[in-house]
Amino acid sequence: MRADEAAADKKALEEGAAFTPRFSDDGLIVCVTVDHRSGEVLMLAHMNRQALDETLASGIMHYWSRSRGALWRKGDTSGQVQSLVELRVDCDQDALLARVMVGGDGGACHTGRRSCFYRRVETVGGARLVPTT
Amino acid sequence: MRADEAAADKKALEEGAAFTPRFSDDGLIVCVTVDHRSGEVLMLAHMNRQALDETLASGIMHYWSRSRGALWRKGDTSGQVQSLVELRVDCDQDALLARVMVGGDGGACHTGRRSCFYRRVETVGGARLVPTT
Repeated sequence: MRADEAAADKKALEEGAAFTPRFSDDGLIVCVTVDHRSGEVLMLAHMNRQALDETLASGIMHYWSRSRGALWRKGDTSGQVQSLVELRVDCDQDALLARVMVGGDGGACHTGRRSCFYRRVETVGGARLVPTT
Repeated sequence: MRADEAAADKKALEEGAAFTPRFSDDGLIVCVTVDHRSGEVLMLAHMNRQALDETLASGIMHYWSRSRGALWRKGDTSGQVQSLVELRVDCDQDALLARVMVGGDGGACHTGRRSCFYRRVETVGGARLVPTT
């Protein structure tokens, strides 16, 4: 590719109206999911093409479970169904940001917490984890 | 590994005080970075072990640039240095959440925007990107 073509591609990717999500070599794209009302970061997960398509078609968050190797409609077993309010993509289109309304008990983490990010790293005297409130 | 050992490992990972970040096969872990004051999601990037160690040691966000294949002290060229306020880890310790104070012009995106997530996906009449305000 010539330099001017590469620059045009970069401009289209970053400034254009075409949604061209860039999946990794493993076919996945990362998605940050936040609570629509509070803005709290609830979880981070991955989507493959199918999960993204089904999310956009249904308005319900679908992910790709890397541990299970399967499409995962969040909430199918927990009731914590996530309704998509807004989906954003980042500058180079290799990350997604979903704002969602959470059903069920309002949580997103399989441990029972609202957010998966329930521990902070404390570095005084060596790194260790401390529960957040 | 026996089932009870696997369960103990999972419990330590999810409920323990030991910070044992799980890097992918490529040696990276994903980090969501949010503005400490507003809670806005600014960017998503990756860290290798060195970037994480230097971040914790210095209190300044370091990432691993996948495009450049190099350690990246955010803000070295842009002035948008990010001071770490709090680092969290998720349930299975394969994702990080950093709350930061942003220096320079307060932005995080190389395009000049405050956040990298400046476009939303509009699905009416086929997926396309629309600038957010």
